[in-house]
Amino acid sequence: MPTPAFLPVASQGTVKALIPEELEDIGITIILGNAYHLYLRPGIDIVEKLGGLHKYMCWDGPILTDSGGYQVFSLARLCRVTDDGVTFRSHIDGSEHHLTPERVTEFQQKLGADIIMALDECPAVNADMVKVREAADRTYRWAERCWKHHQSPDQLLFGIIQGGVFPELRQQSAAAITSLDFPGYAIGGLSLGEAKEQTWSMVDETMPFLPQDKPRYLMGVGSPEDIIEGVSHGIDLFDSALPTRVARNGAIFTMQGRQNIRKASYKGREQPVDADCDCYTCRTFSAAYLHHLFKCEELLAYRLATIHNLRFIVRLMQKIENAIQQGTFTIFKKDFLSQYKVTDEEIRLAQKQKWLNSPRQHTGI
Amino acid sequence: MPTPAFLPVASQGTVKALIPEELEDIGITIILGNAYHLYLRPGIDIVEKLGGLHKYMCWDGPILTDSGGYQVFSLARLCRVTDDGVTFRSHIDGSEHHLTPERVTEFQQKLGADIIMALDECPAVNADMVKVREAADRTYRWAERCWKHHQSPDQLLFGIIQGGVFPELRQQSAAAITSLDFPGYAIGGLSLGEAKEQTWSMVDETMPFLPQDKPRYLMGVGSPEDIIEGVSHGIDLFDSALPTRVARNGAIFTMQGRQNIRKASYKGREQPVDADCDCYTCRTFSAAYLHHLFKCEELLAYRLATIHNLRFIVRLMQKIENAIQQGTFTIFKKDFLSQYKVTDEEIRLAQKQKWLNSPRQHTGI
Repeated sequence: MPTPAFLPVASQGTVKALIPEELEDIGITIILGNAYHLYLRPGIDIVEKLGGLHKYMCWDGPILTDSGGYQVFSLARLCRVTDDGVTFRSHIDGSEHHLTPERVTEFQQKLGADIIMALDECPAVNADMVKVREAADRTYRWAERCWKHHQSPDQLLFGIIQGGVFPELRQQSAAAITSLDFPGYAIGGLSLGEAKEQTWSMVDETMPFLPQDKPRYLMGVGSPEDIIEGVSHGIDLFDSALPTRVARNGAIFTMQGRQNIRKASYKGREQPVDADCDCYTCRTFSAAYLHHLFKCEELLAYRLATIHNLRFIVRLMQKIENAIQQGTFTIFKKDFLSQYKVTDEEIRLAQKQKWLNSPRQHTGI
Repeated sequence: MPTPAFLPVASQGTVKALIPEELEDIGITIILGNAYHLYLRPGIDIVEKLGGLHKYMCWDGPILTDSGGYQVFSLARLCRVTDDGVTFRSHIDGSEHHLTPERVTEFQQKLGADIIMALDECPAVNADMVKVREAADRTYRWAERCWKHHQSPDQLLFGIIQGGVFPELRQQSAAAITSLDFPGYAIGGLSLGEAKEQTWSMVDETMPFLPQDKPRYLMGVGSPEDIIEGVSHGIDLFDSALPTRVARNGAIFTMQGRQNIRKASYKGREQPVDADCDCYTCRTFSAAYLHHLFKCEELLAYRLATIHNLRFIVRLMQKIENAIQQGTFTIFKKDFLSQYKVTDEEIRLAQKQKWLNSPRQHTGI
């Protein structure tokens, strides 16, 4: 797997609107599943019985599954966290569930992912230092239990570093987690939306602790501008629902930034939405047609825009890799960021649109 | 083009959720566009400027466009009908529009469809005989004006027969419309939902008037059981949103009838939803996976179910064609209908679900 790499989100066993063949065509090399979502629906045992997640969703390439820590602490209604584990109510039907580091590790073993994540505790974004320290300490103890419990030799288990926005806690968490010999390390709890500078500052506090010969994964971050920035801070792996989510909202990535395909100026435009792009959507359809599909809220709109945005990210990763190999990454980054304009409004909007991620909201049938 | 043929509905220039390559793979030979929808969005001139409907939606095969008569009288808010034409308010934004037979013919010429339809007046289902006679008479006068106005030698213009559920009016309308030398004839106003017997009785009143060497098209009818029945009444062409609409509602066609993929019994089923089927969905995914996508309301669900139902219809048409050629159609029909069970509840549901056809309802982003 070439790095840096971007993992599209397939929480429920599907990259929204796409089939596996399309992901391959786009050049996607690895995708992200989610133990929390798959535990609730269809159930881990169902996926295991059907031959594991690869077979279930018919994707032959690598899969990384998140432990569900983040989802339990963000999506679910939380009941209580103890050292033993976390009790929560499902965001779907309110049913009560209890997860432990051991169970979550077993779930991911049963799903058969190639890379799995330790269970972590994600404190609220505005939590105070005492709470964040407690969560980081528990995340370490849970990571150790996952590490001890993990038994699949052909599956990699990564540890996750927490510590909120407190430099000292990030350093302590990084030191603790890297004391366990994981084959890769992730930085969690930093998809902070508008607070970009804080994100990169926390990454910088953490990076010196991470071994350079193991993958370093920044969880939940993956806009084009953040990927470029992340690579310059030493990150190898990214995942984010942003490229596919904003696609479904009509925001099309181009080298000049996100373009709103719903804008009237696209109504009669014969050219593809991104003349620079080689994706199926841009090779096949005019911007005018894509505009029309969005105006009519046609299902095909979401699929075509998703294909484009993912291909944009894949090509960006390739350009980054080339630039690194040629020793020209700094110039590439500067050039890219001088062209690629993202307004604060777009960043705010993309955060706000997170609610659209809930299934009910973006399918509606 | 082999007949009998089924036309999937692409009112807004897209068979919902599918790309043209998928339609080809499925074996679709001709699709149905709609002048009413495309006139309102994106506008006829836009499609013309972009090279016509084939190029706009990237579909190389034949396209038949409906004139929009049915839509004006069912979807739009109607203002008034005079001999000149019809004035209505858009179902999208309430804007007022005026259509005449001449304008509608020109629209369809500009769209560049291979087959176009004359403008017809569709009376309400419960209209009395006076109203229905008036509509049928006007439909004839409009058909004549379309016929005189039509000027594209490489485009076929079909006439539409009306007459509601009145045998005498159906006969009169058929006699009148066939007095104009159209290259094909359609029977309109008979997608009557539960009143199947009335539909076939009206078809039988009409058929003797239709020349056997020209295509006979039953508009808005296209469930598997109705296609079989229609063929036995001499119909060559069918169109209906039913196969794709019920697919998006989780009703999967099989030789045993419609199966509700949301049923719990599919949760762990490793086999494809229809073991007898060679479509992409059945070749690739388990019924369990499709069930999961529907339970999660994932966009991919609607696409995969649509592919299956259309393929089911295409294979049905091929089986019908073979049976006709081998002189075994009567046996084939009997066998098919003895296996293929449709409950009254399903028929009622499919009618009720028509509202789901409105874009807002079945995309929701």
